[in-house]
Amino acid sequence: MTSGTDWLDDVRWNADGLVPAIAQDATSRAVPTLAWMNRDALKATADTGEAHYWSRSRGKLWRKGESSGHVQRVREVRLDCDHDAILLLVEQVGGIACHTGRERCFFRRLDGGAWRDVEPVVKDPKAIYGEG
Amino acid sequence: MTSGTDWLDDVRWNADGLVPAIAQDATSRAVPTLAWMNRDALKATADTGEAHYWSRSRGKLWRKGESSGHVQRVREVRLDCDHDAILLLVEQVGGIACHTGRERCFFRRLDGGAWRDVEPVVKDPKAIYGEG
Repeated sequence: MTSGTDWLDDVRWNADGLVPAIAQDATSRAVPTLAWMNRDALKATADTGEAHYWSRSRGKLWRKGESSGHVQRVREVRLDCDHDAILLLVEQVGGIACHTGRERCFFRRLDGGAWRDVEPVVKDPKAIYGEG
Repeated sequence: MTSGTDWLDDVRWNADGLVPAIAQDATSRAVPTLAWMNRDALKATADTGEAHYWSRSRGKLWRKGESSGHVQRVREVRLDCDHDAILLLVEQVGGIACHTGRERCFFRRLDGGAWRDVEPVVKDPKAIYGEG
Protein backbone atom coordinates (compact mmCIF):
# COMPACT_ATOMS: atom_id res chain seq x y z
CA MET A 1 0.00 0.00 0.00
CA THR A 2 1.47 3.33 -1.01
CA SER A 3 -0.26 6.62 -0.53
CA GLY A 4 1.84 8.91 -2.74
CA THR A 5 2.16 12.24 -1.01
CA ASP A 6 -1.21 12.24 0.77
CA TRP A 7 0.67 12.25 4.06
CA LEU A 8 1.98 15.72 3.20
CA ASP A 9 -1.61 16.93 2.90
CA ASP A 10 -2.25 15.74 6.46
CA VAL A 11 0.09 18.46 7.76
CA ARG A 12 -1.54 21.76 8.70
CA TRP A 13 0.87 24.20 7.07
CA ASN A 14 0.62 27.78 8.32
CA ALA A 15 -0.21 30.82 6.18
CA ASP A 16 3.42 30.86 4.95
CA GLY A 17 3.28 27.15 4.12
CA LEU A 18 5.51 26.23 7.07
CA VAL A 19 5.49 24.18 10.27
CA PRO A 20 8.00 24.21 13.14
CA ALA A 21 10.20 21.11 13.27
CA ILE A 22 11.98 20.06 16.45
CA ALA A 23 15.06 17.86 16.18
CA GLN A 24 15.83 15.57 19.09
CA ASP A 25 19.07 13.61 19.31
CA ALA A 26 18.12 9.92 19.25
CA THR A 27 21.04 8.98 21.50
CA SER A 28 21.53 11.82 23.99
CA ARG A 29 17.83 12.84 23.87
CA ALA A 30 18.96 16.48 23.84
CA VAL A 31 16.99 18.94 21.72
CA PRO A 32 19.54 20.68 19.48
CA THR A 33 17.34 22.73 17.14
CA LEU A 34 13.99 24.09 16.17
CA ALA A 35 13.78 24.96 12.49
CA TRP A 36 11.03 25.35 9.90
CA MET A 37 9.86 23.07 7.13
CA ASN A 38 7.79 23.64 4.06
CA ARG A 39 6.27 20.83 2.04
CA ASP A 40 9.40 20.35 -0.08
CA ALA A 41 11.61 20.23 3.00
CA LEU A 42 9.50 17.56 4.68
CA LYS A 43 9.32 15.51 1.49
CA ALA A 44 13.10 15.77 0.97
CA THR A 45 13.63 14.75 4.60
CA ALA A 46 11.49 11.66 4.14
CA ASP A 47 13.01 10.81 0.75
CA THR A 48 16.67 11.19 1.73
CA GLY A 49 16.70 10.40 5.46
CA GLU A 50 18.53 13.66 6.11
CA ALA A 51 16.88 16.68 7.71
CA HIS A 52 15.92 19.43 5.25
CA TYR A 53 14.45 22.74 6.35
CA TRP A 54 13.20 25.97 4.86
CA SER A 55 15.57 28.81 5.65
CA ARG A 56 13.38 31.80 6.40
CA SER A 57 16.35 34.19 6.41
CA ARG A 58 17.71 32.98 3.06
CA GLY A 59 14.35 32.09 1.53
CA LYS A 60 15.49 28.68 0.30
CA LEU A 61 15.42 24.97 0.90
CA TRP A 62 18.33 23.97 3.07
CA ARG A 63 19.85 20.57 3.74
CA LYS A 64 21.01 20.78 7.35
CA GLY A 65 24.78 20.44 7.33
CA GLU A 66 25.23 21.28 3.65
CA SER A 67 27.91 23.86 4.55
CA SER A 68 29.12 22.60 7.92
CA GLY A 69 28.96 18.85 7.35
CA HIS A 70 26.82 18.67 10.50
CA VAL A 71 24.09 16.63 8.90
CA GLN A 72 21.08 15.35 10.86
CA ARG A 73 20.38 11.70 9.95
CA VAL A 74 16.71 11.08 10.55
CA ARG A 75 15.56 7.95 12.34
CA GLU A 76 11.95 8.91 12.88
CA VAL A 77 9.50 11.61 11.79
CA ARG A 78 6.56 12.42 14.06
CA LEU A 79 3.50 14.66 13.72
CA ASP A 80 1.60 16.11 16.66
CA CYS A 81 -2.06 15.96 17.65
CA ASP A 82 -2.91 19.26 15.92
CA HIS A 83 -1.04 18.27 12.74
CA ASP A 84 1.00 21.47 12.88
CA ALA A 85 4.34 20.54 14.46
CA ILE A 86 6.99 17.97 13.50
CA LEU A 87 9.42 16.09 15.73
CA LEU A 88 12.48 14.43 14.21
CA LEU A 89 14.59 11.86 16.00
CA VAL A 90 18.07 12.39 14.57
CA GLU A 91 21.69 11.42 14.77
CA GLN A 92 23.55 14.73 14.85
CA VAL A 93 26.71 14.20 12.80
CA GLY A 94 29.73 15.95 14.33
CA GLY A 95 27.85 16.58 17.57
CA ILE A 96 27.39 20.25 16.69
CA ALA A 97 23.98 21.53 15.63
CA CYS A 98 24.31 25.31 16.07
CA HIS A 99 25.89 27.74 13.62
CA THR A 100 27.62 29.34 16.64
CA GLY A 101 29.69 26.14 17.03
CA ARG A 102 27.76 24.93 20.08
CA GLU A 103 26.25 21.48 20.46
CA ARG A 104 22.79 22.93 20.37
CA CYS A 105 20.96 26.16 19.67
CA PHE A 106 19.25 26.43 23.07
CA PHE A 107 22.35 27.67 24.87
CA ARG A 108 20.79 30.60 26.76
CA ARG A 109 19.18 29.87 30.13
CA LEU A 110 16.90 32.26 31.97
CA ASP A 111 18.60 32.99 35.27
CA GLY A 112 17.63 35.79 37.66
CA GLY A 113 15.86 37.88 35.05
CA ALA A 114 18.51 37.56 32.33
CA TRP A 115 19.54 35.11 29.62
CA ARG A 116 22.94 33.56 30.30
CA ASP A 117 25.05 31.54 27.87
CA VAL A 118 25.50 28.19 29.56
CA GLU A 119 26.98 26.04 26.80
CA PRO A 120 30.53 26.27 25.49
CA VAL A 121 31.53 26.86 21.88
CA VAL A 122 32.87 23.44 20.88
CA LYS A 123 34.37 24.59 17.59
CA ASP A 124 35.06 28.07 16.21
CA PRO A 125 32.47 28.83 13.48
CA LYS A 126 35.34 30.10 11.29
CA ALA A 127 36.80 26.61 11.39
CA ILE A 128 33.41 25.16 10.49
CA TYR A 129 32.37 27.50 7.69
CA GLY A 130 35.69 29.06 6.66
CA GLU A 131 36.50 32.75 6.86
CA GLY A 132 34.41 33.50 3.74
CA MET B 1 21.16 42.93 39.81
CA THR B 2 17.65 42.86 38.42
CA SER B 3 16.76 43.68 34.88
CA GLY B 4 12.98 44.07 35.12
CA THR B 5 11.47 42.61 31.99
CA ASP B 6 14.32 43.44 29.59
CA TRP B 7 14.80 39.71 29.06
CA LEU B 8 11.36 39.61 27.43
CA ASP B 9 12.56 42.18 24.89
CA ASP B 10 15.42 39.85 23.94
CA VAL B 11 12.89 37.44 22.44
CA ARG B 12 12.18 37.86 18.74
CA TRP B 13 8.38 37.60 18.74
CA ASN B 14 6.81 36.89 15.35
CA ALA B 15 4.30 39.14 13.56
CA ASP B 16 1.54 37.74 15.81
CA GLY B 17 3.62 38.36 18.95
CA LEU B 18 4.32 34.63 19.43
CA VAL B 19 7.21 32.17 19.59
CA PRO B 20 7.09 28.37 19.53
CA ALA B 21 7.85 26.76 22.90
CA ILE B 22 9.01 23.16 23.16
CA ALA B 23 8.48 21.31 26.42
CA GLN B 24 10.92 18.53 27.27
CA ASP B 25 10.38 16.22 30.22
CA ALA B 26 13.29 16.77 32.60
CA THR B 27 13.25 13.15 33.73
CA SER B 28 12.32 10.99 30.73
CA ARG B 29 13.78 13.53 28.24
CA ALA B 30 10.75 12.91 26.01
CA VAL B 31 9.29 15.86 24.12
CA PRO B 32 5.59 15.96 24.98
CA THR B 33 4.45 19.23 23.39
CA LEU B 34 5.07 22.18 21.17
CA ALA B 35 2.86 25.14 22.00
CA TRP B 36 2.99 28.90 21.51
CA MET B 37 3.84 31.69 23.91
CA ASN B 38 3.21 35.39 23.79
CA ARG B 39 4.96 37.85 26.09
CA ASP B 40 2.41 37.44 28.89
CA ALA B 41 2.66 33.64 28.71
CA LEU B 42 6.44 33.66 28.99
CA LYS B 43 6.35 36.15 31.86
CA ALA B 44 3.70 34.11 33.69
CA THR B 45 5.79 30.97 33.16
CA ALA B 46 8.84 32.62 34.69
CA ASP B 47 6.85 34.20 37.53
CA THR B 48 4.91 31.10 38.56
CA GLY B 49 7.21 28.22 37.56
CA GLU B 50 4.31 26.62 35.68
CA ALA B 51 4.10 26.55 31.89
CA HIS B 52 1.72 29.10 30.40
CA TYR B 53 0.96 29.30 26.70
CA TRP B 54 -1.11 31.33 24.28
CA SER B 55 -3.97 29.28 22.91
CA ARG B 56 -4.26 30.22 19.25
CA SER B 57 -7.55 28.34 18.87
CA ARG B 58 -9.18 29.96 21.91
CA GLY B 59 -7.34 33.29 21.63
CA LYS B 60 -6.42 33.39 25.31
CA LEU B 61 -3.67 32.89 27.84
CA TRP B 62 -3.70 29.33 29.04
CA ARG B 63 -2.07 27.75 32.07
CA LYS B 64 -1.15 24.25 30.89
CA GLY B 65 -3.18 21.82 32.99
CA GLU B 66 -5.76 24.34 34.17
CA SER B 67 -8.58 22.00 33.09
CA SER B 68 -6.86 18.61 33.18
CA GLY B 69 -4.61 19.07 36.19
CA HIS B 70 -1.71 18.03 33.95
CA VAL B 71 0.46 20.98 34.88
CA GLN B 72 4.00 21.38 33.56
CA ARG B 73 6.35 22.44 36.40
CA VAL B 74 9.20 24.35 34.83
CA ARG B 75 12.76 23.65 35.88
CA GLU B 76 14.54 25.59 33.18
CA VAL B 77 13.72 28.09 30.43
CA ARG B 78 16.02 28.28 27.40
CA LEU B 79 16.21 30.59 24.37
CA ASP B 80 17.82 29.61 21.08
CA CYS B 81 20.55 31.25 19.00
CA ASP B 82 18.08 33.18 16.82
CA HIS B 83 16.08 34.37 19.87
CA ASP B 84 12.87 33.02 18.36
CA ALA B 85 12.27 29.64 19.99
CA ILE B 86 11.91 28.58 23.63
CA LEU B 87 12.75 25.25 25.26
CA LEU B 88 11.28 24.39 28.66
CA LEU B 89 12.55 21.59 30.84
CA VAL B 90 9.47 20.43 32.74
CA GLU B 91 8.05 17.92 35.13
CA GLN B 92 4.86 16.74 33.48
CA VAL B 93 2.35 16.24 36.28
CA GLY B 94 0.16 13.18 35.72
CA GLY B 95 2.44 11.94 32.95
CA ILE B 96 -0.10 13.00 30.31
CA ALA B 97 0.57 16.06 28.15
CA CYS B 98 -1.85 15.60 25.25
CA HIS B 99 -5.54 16.50 25.20
CA THR B 100 -6.14 13.13 23.53
CA GLY B 101 -5.11 11.41 26.78
CA ARG B 102 -1.73 10.29 25.45
CA GLU B 103 1.60 10.89 27.18
CA ARG B 104 2.66 13.25 24.44
CA CYS B 105 1.31 15.05 21.42
CA PHE B 106 3.78 13.58 18.91
CA PHE B 107 2.00 10.24 18.68
CA ARG B 108 1.95 9.87 14.88
CA ARG B 109 4.98 8.34 13.20
CA LEU B 110 5.66 8.46 9.47
CA ASP B 111 5.76 4.87 8.30
CA GLY B 112 5.68 3.75 4.67
CA GLY B 113 4.10 6.95 3.36
CA ALA B 114 1.44 7.29 6.05
CA TRP B 115 1.11 8.61 9.60
CA ARG B 116 0.46 5.84 12.12
CA ASP B 117 -0.66 6.29 15.72
CA VAL B 118 2.06 4.62 17.76
CA GLU B 119 1.26 5.73 21.31
CA PRO B 120 -1.62 4.41 23.40
CA VAL B 121 -4.33 6.53 25.00
CA VAL B 122 -3.39 6.33 28.69
CA LYS B 123 -6.60 7.90 29.97
CA ASP B 124 -9.91 8.59 28.26
CA PRO B 125 -10.20 12.35 27.63
CA LYS B 126 -13.77 12.21 28.99
CA ALA B 127 -12.32 11.10 32.31
CA ILE B 128 -9.80 13.95 32.18
CA TYR B 129 -12.06 16.81 31.12
CA GLY B 130 -15.51 15.51 31.98
CA GLU B 131 -18.28 14.86 29.50
CA GLY B 132 -19.18 18.52 29.09
